[in-house]
Amino acid sequence: MEVRAAVALGAGKPLEVTTVKLEGPRAFEVLVEIKATGLCHTDEFTRSGADPEGIFPAILGHEGAGVVVEVGPGVTSLKPGDHVIPLYTPECRSCEYCLNPKTNLCQAIRSTQGQGLMPDGSSRFSTLDGDPILHYMGTSTFANYTVVPEIALAKIRPDAPFEKVCYIGCGVTTGIGAVINTAKVEIGSRAIVFGLGGIGLNVIQGLRLAGADQIVGVDLNPAKKEMAERFGMTDFVNPSEVEGDLVPYLVNLTKGGADYTFDATGNVNVMRTALESAHKGWGESIIIGVAPAGAEISTRPFQLVTGRSWRGTAFGGARGRTDVPRIVDWYMDGKIEIDPMITHTMPLEDINKGFDLMHAGESIRSVVLY
Amino acid sequence: MEVRAAVALGAGKPLEVTTVKLEGPRAFEVLVEIKATGLCHTDEFTRSGADPEGIFPAILGHEGAGVVVEVGPGVTSLKPGDHVIPLYTPECRSCEYCLNPKTNLCQAIRSTQGQGLMPDGSSRFSTLDGDPILHYMGTSTFANYTVVPEIALAKIRPDAPFEKVCYIGCGVTTGIGAVINTAKVEIGSRAIVFGLGGIGLNVIQGLRLAGADQIVGVDLNPAKKEMAERFGMTDFVNPSEVEGDLVPYLVNLTKGGADYTFDATGNVNVMRTALESAHKGWGESIIIGVAPAGAEISTRPFQLVTGRSWRGTAFGGARGRTDVPRIVDWYMDGKIEIDPMITHTMPLEDINKGFDLMHAGESIRSVVLY
Repeated sequence: MEVRAAVALGAGKPLEVTTVKLEGPRAFEVLVEIKATGLCHTDEFTRSGADPEGIFPAILGHEGAGVVVEVGPGVTSLKPGDHVIPLYTPECRSCEYCLNPKTNLCQAIRSTQGQGLMPDGSSRFSTLDGDPILHYMGTSTFANYTVVPEIALAKIRPDAPFEKVCYIGCGVTTGIGAVINTAKVEIGSRAIVFGLGGIGLNVIQGLRLAGADQIVGVDLNPAKKEMAERFGMTDFVNPSEVEGDLVPYLVNLTKGGADYTFDATGNVNVMRTALESAHKGWGESIIIGVAPAGAEISTRPFQLVTGRSWRGTAFGGARGRTDVPRIVDWYMDGKIEIDPMITHTMPLEDINKGFDLMHAGESIRSVVLY
Repeated sequence: MEVRAAVALGAGKPLEVTTVKLEGPRAFEVLVEIKATGLCHTDEFTRSGADPEGIFPAILGHEGAGVVVEVGPGVTSLKPGDHVIPLYTPECRSCEYCLNPKTNLCQAIRSTQGQGLMPDGSSRFSTLDGDPILHYMGTSTFANYTVVPEIALAKIRPDAPFEKVCYIGCGVTTGIGAVINTAKVEIGSRAIVFGLGGIGLNVIQGLRLAGADQIVGVDLNPAKKEMAERFGMTDFVNPSEVEGDLVPYLVNLTKGGADYTFDATGNVNVMRTALESAHKGWGESIIIGVAPAGAEISTRPFQLVTGRSWRGTAFGGARGRTDVPRIVDWYMDGKIEIDPMITHTMPLEDINKGFDLMHAGESIRSVVLY
């Protein structure tokens, strides 16, 4: 079939919105009509060429929601008409990783996904001339129809609005999940969140959900304060207004250091600050942000020997087929908010404007509506 | 009273064995006759001047065992004749740290202990001329009598031999505790231990106690192999005999990386190798070794984002008054071994020879018998 897609032709080039060919689903695959997709920094990381593992031409996008159109042979958990959110971290429920309660990093289709291919080693997308176009993160939601492995689709309730819950496909789950799955924050905790963008705000509402007593937000942009307070931030710190070192300031503000700190900036210097402002004896620091290629974190080992721990999270530690439908329920029940974070919507034709808004710092989330 | 002590007069100088004066115990303090003390790398770290926080003149030593001689006013948990092990990490059972189950780093007397003083801010030791001599780590076991705060003494069973269980005052507890308190290693785990000295061997026997399936030991010295096997090592790796990078070799040997890795070297490059040879998704790396002043650990944050965690441990995460008596029981019951690790004994007069043996790599542990 012919579908409309925004194709990344090469590193650093704008996406080209065009018509491409899409094959139907093969065994254990599902054809999904994408109704909405968010634009995430990770898409931009790849589009820009900053991702050393980026490959082209490819159809990016990994934060979508849509409806099942057709299922391939062997698919048992989904049927046409089901509403779904594609998962860039699948959940096969049978690999060594899925069977280990300590991780969510299902490895069932990891190698082909990393090569931009479906699990059988081929692509469903091609140009009208028949030249293959690669998938991206197993999801390729920058197309109005896409093919996704069954194990990479979370079935969600049919009354959830696509243009909002698509954000649960990445940002919402990553931020909230970092709090509840990875850090397992306890009621009454003190926490610091570095970076108040789309991920940081979701960390903040995750902390509110978890019953944290103090939620400190750190950002160089004072315009972030109001929205972060809406999501539960109790204290705002602008590092440019702090005299002297930031670490002792934050340690003092949190009465000895935070029980949990979260980096949502991707800046390795901020990651160090986040670790060192965690409480001696038990503070945990969680890295969420994606750092530039080759960048390294460092600290004195004394920071760890005196009881801090340094960890990371991917997709918020969530097992997507199990956890994403629950987060959709939380949204529908009003336990979490999404609407105020979706600051811009646009048709696929204007997708590059969405990335311009991201660079200008004007959007929290832009969503493409098909 | 006059006591015999090995005094560290200054950075880099040999200890001077001489007679010094010791005041009796003040409130909440206890006079202990030290019967045996181990010589630990941390003593040497301070003696040599490598420790930037080292202060002199001081009476070093923190791995002792002895008998209570006299208790000061207010002491309720000990009486003359009790057998005790001094604790450089006390356990007051009432500070914010003791009341938090996530840490063992009791802060009750931290600041005075760091200054070489008893909790009231003064020293009990002085020269025969009356010039003060500092305490060290709150224990100063390089003297045949010492004064220790009540909260820094573990009461142990009277039939345990001083010349063996003194080692539980630091090395044994640090190594075994890193496994059972800090890492909480589960039955069937795979682990890698870097550095097969006095700490590393105790990590190994801790892993055996915890029921680990695979216990890999890594050391440049092949002479360490035999003893480590005796304590439970299943695989020996000499990095100088590995072609290519050590990390992929260890990942392959442990079928994807170790569930737990332990650094017992204090070398920051080894700490990085330890982290990166932990299993993707859930591997934890524990830093035990003390690094040189100013040295820093580093890695790519991707290592953490893909599920590894980096932690540290001090005194094996043990709460000394509670845990040390249990470890003494384990020794007496034959659940753990100590005797083969105590390779040399000597009178106090020969204490500098003990440090010579340490430098020559000839001893696992030297113990001074009073």
